[in-house]
Amino acid sequence: MRVTSRRVELRSDTFTLPTREMREAMVAAELGDDVYGEDPTVRELEGMAARVLGKEAGCFMPSGTMANLSAIMAHCPRGSAALVGMDSDIYRYEAGGASVCGGVVYRPILNRADGGFEPGDILAALPGDVDDPQFAVPKVLCLENPANHAGAKILPEARVRELAELARRHGIAVHLDGARIFNAAVSSGVPAQEIAACADSVQFCLSKGLGAPVGSVVVGRAAFVREVRRIRKMLGGGMRQSGVLAAAGIVALKNRDRLAHDHETARRLAEGLAATPGVEVVSSGMNMVFFRVPGMDHGRFIEEVGARGVAVAELGHERLRAVTHVGVGLDDVDYAVEAVRAVITGTT
Amino acid sequence: MRVTSRRVELRSDTFTLPTREMREAMVAAELGDDVYGEDPTVRELEGMAARVLGKEAGCFMPSGTMANLSAIMAHCPRGSAALVGMDSDIYRYEAGGASVCGGVVYRPILNRADGGFEPGDILAALPGDVDDPQFAVPKVLCLENPANHAGAKILPEARVRELAELARRHGIAVHLDGARIFNAAVSSGVPAQEIAACADSVQFCLSKGLGAPVGSVVVGRAAFVREVRRIRKMLGGGMRQSGVLAAAGIVALKNRDRLAHDHETARRLAEGLAATPGVEVVSSGMNMVFFRVPGMDHGRFIEEVGARGVAVAELGHERLRAVTHVGVGLDDVDYAVEAVRAVITGTT
Amino acid sequence: MRVTSRRVELRSDTFTLPTREMREAMVAAELGDDVYGEDPTVRELEGMAARVLGKEAGCFMPSGTMANLSAIMAHCPRGSAALVGMDSDIYRYEAGGASVCGGVVYRPILNRADGGFEPGDILAALPGDVDDPQFAVPKVLCLENPANHAGAKILPEARVRELAELARRHGIAVHLDGARIFNAAVSSGVPAQEIAACADSVQFCLSKGLGAPVGSVVVGRAAFVREVRRIRKMLGGGMRQSGVLAAAGIVALKNRDRLAHDHETARRLAEGLAATPGVEVVSSGMNMVFFRVPGMDHGRFIEEVGARGVAVAELGHERLRAVTHVGVGLDDVDYAVEAVRAVITGTT
Amino acid sequence: MRVTSRRVELRSDTFTLPTREMREAMVAAELGDDVYGEDPTVRELEGMAARVLGKEAGCFMPSGTMANLSAIMAHCPRGSAALVGMDSDIYRYEAGGASVCGGVVYRPILNRADGGFEPGDILAALPGDVDDPQFAVPKVLCLENPANHAGAKILPEARVRELAELARRHGIAVHLDGARIFNAAVSSGVPAQEIAACADSVQFCLSKGLGAPVGSVVVGRAAFVREVRRIRKMLGGGMRQSGVLAAAGIVALKNRDRLAHDHETARRLAEGLAATPGVEVVSSGMNMVFFRVPGMDHGRFIEEVGARGVAVAELGHERLRAVTHVGVGLDDVDYAVEAVRAVITGTT
Ligand SMILES: [Ca+2]
Ligand SMILES: [Ca+2]
Ligand SMILES: [Ca+2]
Ligand SMILES: [Ca+2]
Ligand SMILES: [Ca+2]
Ligand SMILES: [Ca+2]
Repeated sequence: MRVTSRRVELRSDTFTLPTREMREAMVAAELGDDVYGEDPTVRELEGMAARVLGKEAGCFMPSGTMANLSAIMAHCPRGSAALVGMDSDIYRYEAGGASVCGGVVYRPILNRADGGFEPGDILAALPGDVDDPQFAVPKVLCLENPANHAGAKILPEARVRELAELARRHGIAVHLDGARIFNAAVSSGVPAQEIAACADSVQFCLSKGLGAPVGSVVVGRAAFVREVRRIRKMLGGGMRQSGVLAAAGIVALKNRDRLAHDHETARRLAEGLAATPGVEVVSSGMNMVFFRVPGMDHGRFIEEVGARGVAVAELGHERLRAVTHVGVGLDDVDYAVEAVRAVITGTT
Repeated sequence: MRVTSRRVELRSDTFTLPTREMREAMVAAELGDDVYGEDPTVRELEGMAARVLGKEAGCFMPSGTMANLSAIMAHCPRGSAALVGMDSDIYRYEAGGASVCGGVVYRPILNRADGGFEPGDILAALPGDVDDPQFAVPKVLCLENPANHAGAKILPEARVRELAELARRHGIAVHLDGARIFNAAVSSGVPAQEIAACADSVQFCLSKGLGAPVGSVVVGRAAFVREVRRIRKMLGGGMRQSGVLAAAGIVALKNRDRLAHDHETARRLAEGLAATPGVEVVSSGMNMVFFRVPGMDHGRFIEEVGARGVAVAELGHERLRAVTHVGVGLDDVDYAVEAVRAVITGTT
Repeated sequence: MRVTSRRVELRSDTFTLPTREMREAMVAAELGDDVYGEDPTVRELEGMAARVLGKEAGCFMPSGTMANLSAIMAHCPRGSAALVGMDSDIYRYEAGGASVCGGVVYRPILNRADGGFEPGDILAALPGDVDDPQFAVPKVLCLENPANHAGAKILPEARVRELAELARRHGIAVHLDGARIFNAAVSSGVPAQEIAACADSVQFCLSKGLGAPVGSVVVGRAAFVREVRRIRKMLGGGMRQSGVLAAAGIVALKNRDRLAHDHETARRLAEGLAATPGVEVVSSGMNMVFFRVPGMDHGRFIEEVGARGVAVAELGHERLRAVTHVGVGLDDVDYAVEAVRAVITGTT
Repeated sequence: MRVTSRRVELRSDTFTLPTREMREAMVAAELGDDVYGEDPTVRELEGMAARVLGKEAGCFMPSGTMANLSAIMAHCPRGSAALVGMDSDIYRYEAGGASVCGGVVYRPILNRADGGFEPGDILAALPGDVDDPQFAVPKVLCLENPANHAGAKILPEARVRELAELARRHGIAVHLDGARIFNAAVSSGVPAQEIAACADSVQFCLSKGLGAPVGSVVVGRAAFVREVRRIRKMLGGGMRQSGVLAAAGIVALKNRDRLAHDHETARRLAEGLAATPGVEVVSSGMNMVFFRVPGMDHGRFIEEVGARGVAVAELGHERLRAVTHVGVGLDDVDYAVEAVRAVITGTT
């Protein structure tokens, strides 16, 4: 029998809804006008984020897109270049903001299987002579950790260190798109501040697995964050009583260890899918499972499991992705596996 | 006796804190991921805003700055110009975003006493020949109504109509920065949608007198709003479960008639200040009083009334401004007048 | 009898054709690839220009527009502002390039009768607090000397010094659009390098009164000129064997004293026009005469004197301008005055 | 015996010096102010270029960089993307101008061995949904033909047609960077206008093998060229009596068949180098020879042949390139081969 009223949202962890605790914090939050720097709750969140990631200061943002954009602009003067992953979210899904708003050239580098770059590929992208005006000179190297497109992989520590050193030798700052950095920390047992240590600036999202409704934070040195704040205002990201959002963010950040639960759920989902005939699990990690259903058109597959209340999405042109989060329990996962099996076998 | 624990916030209506009703609506809001267009509360707010202002569609924004920036960019292709008030908020306080992000040239026009422009000044700013490549061609005329800098004046209807017709004859769209359009509507008795009728696009702020914690809305034709939405994403203004903010915005918009109370409070404040020796009320309108204290340095005045818990601000280089809002009662106003009198007479 | 085969070109001194000496220099020029910095003739011109204007280095440009644009961009990082004359060529006739290519905000300042600015107007355009992110902070003040729109006026030296000091106190560089700086020098007897002394950078045009076919030069400190050169390449102004143009430029620059002849011709033209009933000479200076013909539509006037072979142009919306140059002799001027008289009196 | 006074310039065909015929044409050219569209020689060149390439109109440019930049900007509104070769001159050597001046995102595509692209790589670069605001939507595909980096290869006609059709199906214009298109035409016997037929716009350089001192031309539809001309003015590429340059360009274009001589010279050079022990010819085509000297550091090799008067250059990080042109005779080539042999064998 088909249960159509049930809904298991596996498209992304951006769909997380705020918990009761977050909603209560939002109601109780002490507020002020953050455009004047007077919202105590925003300040608390920014300070907490900086401490947790081992940086001097933080700046609250309406989105991860603006967090990355502001950070790149603060690192890159007009006419310089940003080295980004060919498959990175920054390059593919953020509408080219650094070129539009910053006059910055994206210089995409091939992402290797581990989500990182070959040093040789970086070197090949550097101008032979930085004084030669025909070249846009790179001023930031953007890493994504964990790497979404590589199948939610944690970048190997040695790789990161090697790339960061290479960047520094060439006067290039390192920005870490750590949208899901706490998934990486919880999953690997490496403290987030160690993962962040390689980078001059880091952004992370409160609204993904952490479960807050809105927001990201950029952290880095104090002077850098002041520049980020200036750019944020120009882009229109200065908000008034944004403490209502920050309050939920504080709860999200405090409870970050609960991400372990999402990883467990994802593991169960990966096992269930792997055991389902007609499903090929490509990779899984943290709160994500990437898979294919070789016998079916992906569009049709998405539609049919959707009809059974299970929402998954294609990522890029070839893979399906299921993401677990606070809104997905173990029973939801079991239900989802059952729905996939039913769709593939054609059972109703 | 000096009461230092009392605080009367008159610097701006951006300092409004959400009411209990708003906070409850935020907690109860039905949410979704608005980046996927799935937040029902955001959609409800956008639809309501469009209806109230008589336009086809709306787009929720994290700030008035982004609302104006996105609207200008949607009207103005790269290399074109925006006609803006020399004293307008858009030109003076929004960090030049349209030039930075949009490659748009600001062409400031002298603001006349009524907050509007002389048609001749507009004509003088138009290129003799739009096909001559030496000119940046204006594609939008930005009006501000009510005009903040002119002392919270409502633009005369005939003036607005004349300017809008002039713009249209030259293929120039009209954008209305209606940050406080509902103050104008409530104060004049003219429905907001009539005030908005002259404009192709309008933005208004939920977080000023309307009292919501965060947000603005841009309204206009459906195709225009789609373009605004695209630009919003690029700027980083796409938020996830922004229904938490929109819920407060809906309450704010429904209760907009309460602005009448702020106007009454401001009138009482204006009268009280006018009756205070050493205070010169320059102008007052809606929820604002502009004044000077000719015998004192403004910086010192601000500090001294501040020590008594009354916060006012300088606007531009020469005037003090006091703004009433939901957080300011009639007794607060009386207290503020008393504090001003005490500071000026030097009484403690 | 109407002489239609004669042509007196008074629309602008940009119409100057290269002299025989220039053409011969072009043919004989030693050339190289200037993109590699190997054109000896370009280097010679750049060095000569720097010396004549008392600066460290120079950079050859395809146009005055690019010279100003590159200089403004080199002074102004993305998001900063350029203070420019409301009536200046930079603001009105250069297509807004600094906003489009540089993300720079134009902040126009009212031009006073002498072509300069009131210090108070500059101060009013400065942000109250440069650290407040709502403001675009000015980084360059652009002067135009002589001021084209003010009727080819030389800025009073005291005025220039006052403005330059004001700028410096606020950390603002001074750029001089000296398109016709040598007309000012020859006319006033003040050496060009004294006129240039107030400015951090200067551009002048070789292709106006100096008579070269193409080009301008930017001069300033060596590090500044290196940055200008980088920007020039990005804009597409790096040319190959541009020594062919520079050769004519060298001749033009060497023979700059011949501008005195154009000033004499213009004086005679001004006198002739002043003595013509129906003509009102508004102002004249150096090689320009600004006038009106109150009894006639300017468009029709231009057409009718044009039919007699005399080309003049409207500048802005209200004045006619006649400009003398190497291609205009005393007899041409007499012929032109006669043609104007005939048109006004309706004689054929 | 070492002949140090002889100089064989093989670094690039940009080093070509104007011929006597060109210099004479420059002296004799009829001129006017091209900013007013009144230079007859520029018009003649633009018309000739358009005809030769089978397009409606042309626009003269100070450089190939500005030609490509203006064309990309005319095709690509702010916020859209340009598909460019990863190894193309546009992407690597033109300072990122389209991002800086145009707010355009470069989307580099892997260049295949033939200098073209795999259709699948193009498809992978297209957004899944052009209405989804997270994507910068491509509006132009830039081909380079012949492909400099691929070793001066002519793109196979079938490849070009396939790519152009693919582009058109997705509403993407095709721009051809035909810097050396006439080398391709002369070498292949295919008329230039057939090579250009696939493209909406083409730019070619007058100052490379064609031998003119300065300039490029963009050709395309009349409305497109008007937009290019507008952008040229904004960038500062509007020049005054540029007929002096166009005159040489006309001679260059008329004599384009002489490129066959450069190809013959290059063939002889390739053979000579191939027969030299210690030299590995990687590829050769038209007027270029790409080679390596595996036993020597390239920097030292360049210096040592340079000491013998033979100038070659590294291209990218791994190859040496020698380019023949009007300034290189058969005897120069023989001399160059001898110099290379001497350097490698260590003979003085
Ligand atoms: Ca969420
Ligand atoms: Ca508020
Ligand atoms: Ca820009
Ligand atoms: Ca000239
Ligand atoms: Ca730009
Ligand atoms: Ca050449």
